[in-house]
Amino acid sequence: MQRYFTNNKPNNHTIIIDGDDYSHITKVMRMKKGDKAYICSEGLTYLGEIAQINSQDVVFKIIKEIEEKKELNVDVCIAHGIVRREKMEEVIEKVTALGANYYLPVEMERCNAKMHEEKKDKKISRLNKIAKEAAEQSHRTRILEVLEPISFKSFLDYSKQFDILLVAYENTNIEENLKKVLNKENIKNILILIGPEGGISEMELKTLIDHHFIKVSLGPRILRTELAPVYIMSVIGYEWETR
Amino acid sequence: MQRYFTNNKPNNHTIIIDGDDYSHITKVMRMKKGDKAYICSEGLTYLGEIAQINSQDVVFKIIKEIEEKKELNVDVCIAHGIVRREKMEEVIEKVTALGANYYLPVEMERCNAKMHEEKKDKKISRLNKIAKEAAEQSHRTRILEVLEPISFKSFLDYSKQFDILLVAYENTNIEENLKKVLNKENIKNILILIGPEGGISEMELKTLIDHHFIKVSLGPRILRTELAPVYIMSVIGYEWETR
Repeated sequence: MQRYFTNNKPNNHTIIIDGDDYSHITKVMRMKKGDKAYICSEGLTYLGEIAQINSQDVVFKIIKEIEEKKELNVDVCIAHGIVRREKMEEVIEKVTALGANYYLPVEMERCNAKMHEEKKDKKISRLNKIAKEAAEQSHRTRILEVLEPISFKSFLDYSKQFDILLVAYENTNIEENLKKVLNKENIKNILILIGPEGGISEMELKTLIDHHFIKVSLGPRILRTELAPVYIMSVIGYEWETR
Repeated sequence: MQRYFTNNKPNNHTIIIDGDDYSHITKVMRMKKGDKAYICSEGLTYLGEIAQINSQDVVFKIIKEIEEKKELNVDVCIAHGIVRREKMEEVIEKVTALGANYYLPVEMERCNAKMHEEKKDKKISRLNKIAKEAAEQSHRTRILEVLEPISFKSFLDYSKQFDILLVAYENTNIEENLKKVLNKENIKNILILIGPEGGISEMELKTLIDHHFIKVSLGPRILRTELAPVYIMSVIGYEWETR
């Protein structure tokens, strides 16, 4: 069944869908009065039935609240050295389906892609739309948020709010085993940094270590910058959801 | 450093690279006498230096054998309901980087893509080329093999040679926990079946269970048919390589 996210709140056993999803419901899916869909609002999921189709919105009658356990018990932010648009889109789609909550583009030394100031807002809004669609398709009850790109320096400040800070580094001389790190107790949130295509510079790595980042290996094979976030999110989902 | 796979064997401390890689070395990389590369032959890796460039091959002098531990200790075959070409290519590239050894397209009830008999050989050969390139880029010492597509019935016969048979099924009523299954002792090889976009039919699932397949969940969110193999290979790599 189709699933729609909305910022609108339930009111008197109804909930309203408007904007792009209005067009999706009426033009793409050609739904009619009486058709059903799941509506996600504020982390809750409702089974709704179309009660009325207006010129700019659809009114769903709420049949019942659905109990779903779709979200990870740990809040994960994927920080990623800025990569080309298509790769960013691919990563956002996949890590959303795997349960990540934030995607943060970071300006790093070896980035060979940029987010131009004048196009930034449009780009971020497009990326957030991709996250919304991926959340719908993967049946999440929460949408990953794509954050504004930040400088490496600001990223170090940003990192202070997290319980566990990880940096993926393709080197076999790793002091910390990923499994040991992920099995520490009482982890509420994780920040993981993946370098851009050019990798992480020695200087950046040193700075990260000084700021309490833990260097972890994602295995002995070299993973492309768009595959590394998918590996780590798969593993986090697996560790948390098969316990 | 560049990495090339060859079926040629070392002979008198030299090894020859020909075919497509000859063009890659001379035309794309424009390498010269004295330039170095890694050469993988029969599962071993050599550091080689170009001794001679001929009109159709390059002779590498072997400087030394490199000790590498790039391969998983478990032989994994990803069986996949036939999907569209682009999705197949994407999956093959990614699961190769993650250490899988075989990719087997399976004809299933709900496949909405086909491999036409007359184009099959060309298609398989193209897919194997993608696997070779992905093996080079991820620094593997072995190349994933893309197998000829088979019928569901033949697949059941094929499955008999494996220690563990898994089928990914998006349903929360799963009797077996994936972590428990992967942590069984003495697993030498794993066959995992992922359904096509349309999923696995009830009838197929029943038949699989009758043939000793274990139904496993890849988490509570719905993963697309091209993401599920990547999730499972990430998790297998993680389980085997962080022990």
